[in-house]
Amino acid sequence: MTHLSEGRRRGRPDITHLFLLTALESIVNKQGQLNILIHTRHDKVITVNPKTRIMRNYERFLGLLEQLFEEHVVPDRKQPLLLLRENISLKQVIEQQQADFVVALSKDGKPVVLQQYFKKLKKQNTHHLLFLIGGFPSGQFHTDINTIATEVISLYPEMLPAWTVVSEILVNYGNMCR
Amino acid sequence: MTHLSEGRRRGRPDITHLFLLTALESIVNKQGQLNILIHTRHDKVITVNPKTRIMRNYERFLGLLEQLFEEHVVPDRKQPLLLLRENISLKQVIEQQQADFVVALSKDGKPVVLQQYFKKLKKQNTHHLLFLIGGFPSGQFHTDINTIATEVISLYPEMLPAWTVVSEILVNYGNMCR
Repeated sequence: MTHLSEGRRRGRPDITHLFLLTALESIVNKQGQLNILIHTRHDKVITVNPKTRIMRNYERFLGLLEQLFEEHVVPDRKQPLLLLRENISLKQVIEQQQADFVVALSKDGKPVVLQQYFKKLKKQNTHHLLFLIGGFPSGQFHTDINTIATEVISLYPEMLPAWTVVSEILVNYGNMCR
Repeated sequence: MTHLSEGRRRGRPDITHLFLLTALESIVNKQGQLNILIHTRHDKVITVNPKTRIMRNYERFLGLLEQLFEEHVVPDRKQPLLLLRENISLKQVIEQQQADFVVALSKDGKPVVLQQYFKKLKKQNTHHLLFLIGGFPSGQFHTDINTIATEVISLYPEMLPAWTVVSEILVNYGNMCR
C-alpha cells in the first residue's frame, strides 16, 4: 500500500486517508451503522473501529499506517482502533462478513439512481449490505468482482474518487434509514 | 487564514482543503451545478472555478494558497482557477450572489431532513440556492447569520465537519435534480 511500484491500479494511502475522513465523519457512522474494512492487493486486511478519529494530517496518518504494519494493531491491543490481518483474499474477507447483499461499484456497472436502488433493497428486506469500493486512482479491481459481488452498479459514467462514491452511498443509505 | 492566533473559531486551511476535495469532486459539480466561494474572517473572498482540480497533497495546496494571497489569482489571469478579492464582508458576498434563498447550517438551527427540505424548496420554485457552511473547527460564525440567511437549519445535533455537511447537501441536491 505504501509502495507504488506496480503502477496506477495500486491503492494509495492518500485515497485511503480521504476515504476514511469522509466515511468516519459521516452521519451514518456517527449513528453506529457502519463498518469499514480495507483490503490491500497484498491480501492484508485492516479492520477500522468505527470510533476511530483519523488525523487530518496526512504525514501523521502515514506514521500511523507504518506503526500498524509493524505492530499489527494501533494504538494497542486493549483498545484496537486499527487491526491488521494478513493472507486473506478479497473473496475471503467478503465471505467472512456474511452480508445479505454485496454491491460492487464500477463506472462500467449497471447505471442506477441510488435513492431508488436503496428503496428496492429495503423492499427486498436486505439488512446487512456490503459495498465494495475501489481505492485506486484508475483501472479495475485485481479480482474479478463479478464472481464476488451480487451486483455491480455504476453511479456515474466517469471514474469518481472513492470518497465521492462513499458519500453518495452513505448519504442515501442514511436517507433510507430515516 | 493561515495564522491561528485568534483561536479555534478561525477557519483553517486543512478544513478548506478537505471541503474543496469533497465539493469539487462531487457529481453535482461535475454536472456544472455548483459555484464555490470561500469567505475568510479578514473579509477576503476566494472564487473557485468549478473546473479546478485541487491537489490532494496538503503541502502543495498550502503553496497554492500562498501564491494566491500574493498574486490574487492562480495559475494566471488568462485562466483563473482561484481568484482573491479583498474587503468584502460576508453580507456583501451573499448579496452579490443574488440567491433566491440563503440557507445557513448550524447545529443549533431548525432540525431538518434534507431530502424533504429540498422537495419543499423545489415546490417553492427556488432555483438559485446559496448554502453557508462554517469552515471552523468549533464555535459560531463571526457574523450574526440570522441577519444574513433566509433560514438556519441543522442536519445533526452535534457539530459536523464542513466536508460532511457539503456531502449531505450535494448528494441530496443531486437527488432532487434527477
